[in-house]
Amino acid sequence: MSLFISLEGIEGCGKTTQIKVLASRLEDLGIRVLVTREPGGCPISDQIRQILLNPGNNLLVAKAELLLYAAARAQHVDEIIAPALQKGAIVLCDRFSDATLAYQGYGRGLDLELIHLLNDVAAGTCRPHLTLLLDMPAEQGITRARARNAASAGPDEDRFEQEALAFHLKVRQGYLELARRAPSRFRIIDADGTPEQVADRIWQVTSAMAMAAGRA
Amino acid sequence: MSLFISLEGIEGCGKTTQIKVLASRLEDLGIRVLVTREPGGCPISDQIRQILLNPGNNLLVAKAELLLYAAARAQHVDEIIAPALQKGAIVLCDRFSDATLAYQGYGRGLDLELIHLLNDVAAGTCRPHLTLLLDMPAEQGITRARARNAASAGPDEDRFEQEALAFHLKVRQGYLELARRAPSRFRIIDADGTPEQVADRIWQVTSAMAMAAGRA
Repeated sequence: MSLFISLEGIEGCGKTTQIKVLASRLEDLGIRVLVTREPGGCPISDQIRQILLNPGNNLLVAKAELLLYAAARAQHVDEIIAPALQKGAIVLCDRFSDATLAYQGYGRGLDLELIHLLNDVAAGTCRPHLTLLLDMPAEQGITRARARNAASAGPDEDRFEQEALAFHLKVRQGYLELARRAPSRFRIIDADGTPEQVADRIWQVTSAMAMAAGRA
Repeated sequence: MSLFISLEGIEGCGKTTQIKVLASRLEDLGIRVLVTREPGGCPISDQIRQILLNPGNNLLVAKAELLLYAAARAQHVDEIIAPALQKGAIVLCDRFSDATLAYQGYGRGLDLELIHLLNDVAAGTCRPHLTLLLDMPAEQGITRARARNAASAGPDEDRFEQEALAFHLKVRQGYLELARRAPSRFRIIDADGTPEQVADRIWQVTSAMAMAAGRA
């Protein structure tokens, strides 16, 4: 049985680390896992990602940004996620439709109905069965993300990390609101703590479901 | 008074040549003209254009393609077309919303209602006042486009020129259908003839309107 799990949260919440830990725990149990991310996940969507995250594209208007996310998602779902689910894999996706609602909707104030509509156009019937929201105060996430970028050799690729704290506060509140509206799909994970502590919290809420899916 | 004119037609119909001739005739009369094109027209939309027209992106799915066109249009309208119209310029645009209906809708068979919706999201209230459809048989256009590409030194950038003739026949019929549905906006120009003959036909249907707009 296939299972689609998305991981969400603000910059610096530890998603990228945690998705690897979760994948490796599942693989240790012999379960087939596909780890992917948005925007991106396949060559065409990675080309779209380059446009979206390039700090040189500071003239990008909010509506074009929204349509680019939808385009990257449509390609990613059709080319990668849907085929993997059809083959019975567990798909772990670093950000999905909720990220567009949180960042472009709650963060930038774009019309939530339009975002829902574009999410539906892009993803069709492909929806996460489970969404892990790695929650932490926005200040803490930003501090972590900035430290990570300062330590990395490459250029700072991410336009979003340059946004003001007020933006990230709105994004976090947006995520919490989305979780309140879909309590059966969302699990809020306290993302404060060591990577091991957070990984254990994630394993508590995913292991039973993932093992059931992996066995079936 | 501003005026927004779009030029449409199948590959090889001569749009690119004719838009330059029309611009130069208007400029000779002292009228301020902005010549632009879709997909593209500004740096961000040109980046999207690279993705759309790259023959290496042969896995691009129809829905993602549609959303990329909408993204490029949203950016182009906001950054280039709308400000130029606000300043009272005459904007000549090589392809606009009708091209998405003709190629993705009539050509690829994507839902026309969805395309109309995305065109509305992308362009908002920004609509051409006049659309010149340079019409010619699809066979003739393709032959011209292939001869042009064979003569050019650069790589063949255009995925659309690689499509089968049947596709271009549907695109041409789509354009003619769009013209039938919006007769007050469309002018069908016979694109068969020398560039000078076609330019004269275009001048006949645009000069009065353009000069009135340029004077006001």
